[in-house]
Amino acid sequence: MPDTPTPAPLQPPPVIALLSRAVDLAFLVPAFEAACPGVQLRLGSDLGALDDIEAAACWQPAPGVLATLPRLRLVQSLAAGIDHLSSDPTLPRGVPLCRIVDPEMASGMAAYVVWAVVHQQRHLGQLLRQAGQQLWKTQPVQPTGHHRVGIAGLGTLGVACARALQALGYSVRGWRRSAPAAGEALPDDVALFHGDDQRAGFLAGCDTLVNLLPLTDATRGLLDAALFAQLPRGAHLVNVGRGEHLVEADLLTALASGQLGAATLDTFAQEPLPAGHPFWTHPQITVTPHIATRTHPAVMVRQTLDNLAAVRAGQRPAAAVDLARGY
Amino acid sequence: MPDTPTPAPLQPPPVIALLSRAVDLAFLVPAFEAACPGVQLRLGSDLGALDDIEAAACWQPAPGVLATLPRLRLVQSLAAGIDHLSSDPTLPRGVPLCRIVDPEMASGMAAYVVWAVVHQQRHLGQLLRQAGQQLWKTQPVQPTGHHRVGIAGLGTLGVACARALQALGYSVRGWRRSAPAAGEALPDDVALFHGDDQRAGFLAGCDTLVNLLPLTDATRGLLDAALFAQLPRGAHLVNVGRGEHLVEADLLTALASGQLGAATLDTFAQEPLPAGHPFWTHPQITVTPHIATRTHPAVMVRQTLDNLAAVRAGQRPAAAVDLARGY
Ligand SMILES: NC(=O)c1ccc[n+]([C@@H]2O[C@H](COP(=O)([O-])OP(=O)(O)OC[C@H]3O[C@@H](n4cnc5c(N)ncnc54)[C@H](OP(=O)(O)O)[C@@H]3O)[C@@H](O)[C@H]2O)c1
Ligand SMILES: NC(=O)c1ccc[n+]([C@@H]2O[C@H](COP(=O)([O-])OP(=O)(O)OC[C@H]3O[C@@H](n4cnc5c(N)ncnc54)[C@H](OP(=O)(O)O)[C@@H]3O)[C@@H](O)[C@H]2O)c1
Repeated sequence: MPDTPTPAPLQPPPVIALLSRAVDLAFLVPAFEAACPGVQLRLGSDLGALDDIEAAACWQPAPGVLATLPRLRLVQSLAAGIDHLSSDPTLPRGVPLCRIVDPEMASGMAAYVVWAVVHQQRHLGQLLRQAGQQLWKTQPVQPTGHHRVGIAGLGTLGVACARALQALGYSVRGWRRSAPAAGEALPDDVALFHGDDQRAGFLAGCDTLVNLLPLTDATRGLLDAALFAQLPRGAHLVNVGRGEHLVEADLLTALASGQLGAATLDTFAQEPLPAGHPFWTHPQITVTPHIATRTHPAVMVRQTLDNLAAVRAGQRPAAAVDLARGY
Repeated sequence: MPDTPTPAPLQPPPVIALLSRAVDLAFLVPAFEAACPGVQLRLGSDLGALDDIEAAACWQPAPGVLATLPRLRLVQSLAAGIDHLSSDPTLPRGVPLCRIVDPEMASGMAAYVVWAVVHQQRHLGQLLRQAGQQLWKTQPVQPTGHHRVGIAGLGTLGVACARALQALGYSVRGWRRSAPAAGEALPDDVALFHGDDQRAGFLAGCDTLVNLLPLTDATRGLLDAALFAQLPRGAHLVNVGRGEHLVEADLLTALASGQLGAATLDTFAQEPLPAGHPFWTHPQITVTPHIATRTHPAVMVRQTLDNLAAVRAGQRPAAAVDLARGY
């Protein structure tokens, strides 16, 4: 936790709903009570009175539930992404919707992405399997500077990954929606591509492609056969965005044809990835259970309370997303 | 390869011996002939006339062979370390002995060390084993900033590792022989410990200890029970120095007692690590076959020729080691 002075507790203490169909959010209760004495937390199937709930802290809430809260002033995603909220057609669109923006989350993501890149580029998966057979057998080592890593989605997390990969000498490029702003501080030596026009040029130079895009109408299903065909033959795909970015059948076809060489997947359309899914046993696919990064509960709680304080003060919270663009 | 202007070829072209008992150095012949037209290379069991050999490029040469070369003016190690040469009591100590110093080698080492740290700290080995059983099971994620990585040997390679780990938010400390010089540029925020007096203080804060020391009389067998006892309980040892730094039996004891939690080993007293060695199958030990980093043949050749040019010009080559201190 950063050593910043503790802000004054919200007065009067708010009523906050903790909403998820996927996980038990009870683990947040101690952190909320520590940070905000008097807070009333509502969770589980019976939320009690609905008209005093001021904020909702959510991870995959039941669709429709937010629309039943008449006095809601803040929807707080408990993740960096908000696709689990924007996918609900009844989401109250006039209420500010905030996401988590957390430097520790960015470091955690960068650690995972660097691991995924090195593990594949340096044949470590293969070396570990050979070690299991007591086999001492080396592989030629390509210098990191000869390996081009492209990051699709050069936002908060993507920039942290770019910096970490650069520190290892990888040749890094990034792709995002917007053109660079005048005077904008980008990591040195990251080749920046932007917009649909520059997508093909970006992809042509990605020996590894890391997907860190948010899930929006513009990005759903982006990782498909057409995109794979624009990568150098044998490229490595790292998907740490969302499972819905990937057309699963197209990945299997591209691996079979050799157009893709390998895939490291942390997110899936269906989570947990069901037993028997072909990804589990595919020799060229590495599966991890959506662990690329995490946010500390105290950070989720602090950001929820700070965003609510901003709303009460009549301000738009800094972490509010633009629902029109979808992220 | 850096885009520096090609230096003028050495005139007259030298006679260079390529000496190794461990590997066939014939792979260096094309690079030598390209960089130095007219060069005469001697390799294999019959070196021909010995009195015209001016330089020897070596990786684990037969002990005694260098002492048979009467006109030798340069001993070039084909690695960053020179322990494979200084261990020969007949090494001609008046002849400059150079090691390889190569930024690509440093990047490669940093990539391996970051991989080893993340693989263990983020439970990725365990997650991959579970994935093999189609098991979706997560582990709590500690922020990188809560994990302290200590680098023993903060030299060319150690500094590159420190920077890369810092870019991921790890808390990094380093230990070396010498005190910081006035105005010396060290990576920001790396806590620097030096000398035997500060060794215990350094070790007490190493959740992961990375050994990147050179092998000398002062460091042989340093990784022993006494040192392990000074680490926090459950620490992770990464040995990318030399196998002779490690007291193998003490490692097994420390893992059994829980004083060490895991070890990632790239170097071994006997290489290849023999089949049946307990390290291969130990559940807490990760073995890789001395692949942490590599130098491109063209770099080995360029540095050999540049060092010989310096010697011919009456200069001491920059990469010459200090045989008195042993590295
Ligand atoms: N696997 C995990 O554990 C995990 C954890 C956290 C987050 N995530 C995923 O990571 C995503 C990114 O998080 P973040 O915090 O870095 O988000 P962010 O700061 O909002 O960055 C998103 C980036 O994507 C770019 N982008 C958006 N739509 C685009 C389009 N149609 N074409 C090209 N570029 C587009 C944006 O461009 P501009 O810069 O021009 O706006 C921006 O660079 C999240 O949405 C989430 O899905 C996964
Ligand atoms: N596994 C692999 O693939 C691989 C590849 C390359 C190299 N290596 C190993 O890595 C080693 C380091 O390479 P490098 O290029 O970084 O060497 P370097 O630049 O000479 O650095 C050596 C570091 O160790 C410190 N040191 C030496 N003796 C010490 C002692 N008795 N106590 C405390 N610190 C001591 C030095 O201190 P000062 O700074 O005060 O001199 C220096 O910081 C090589 O010798 C080799 O064994 C392994």
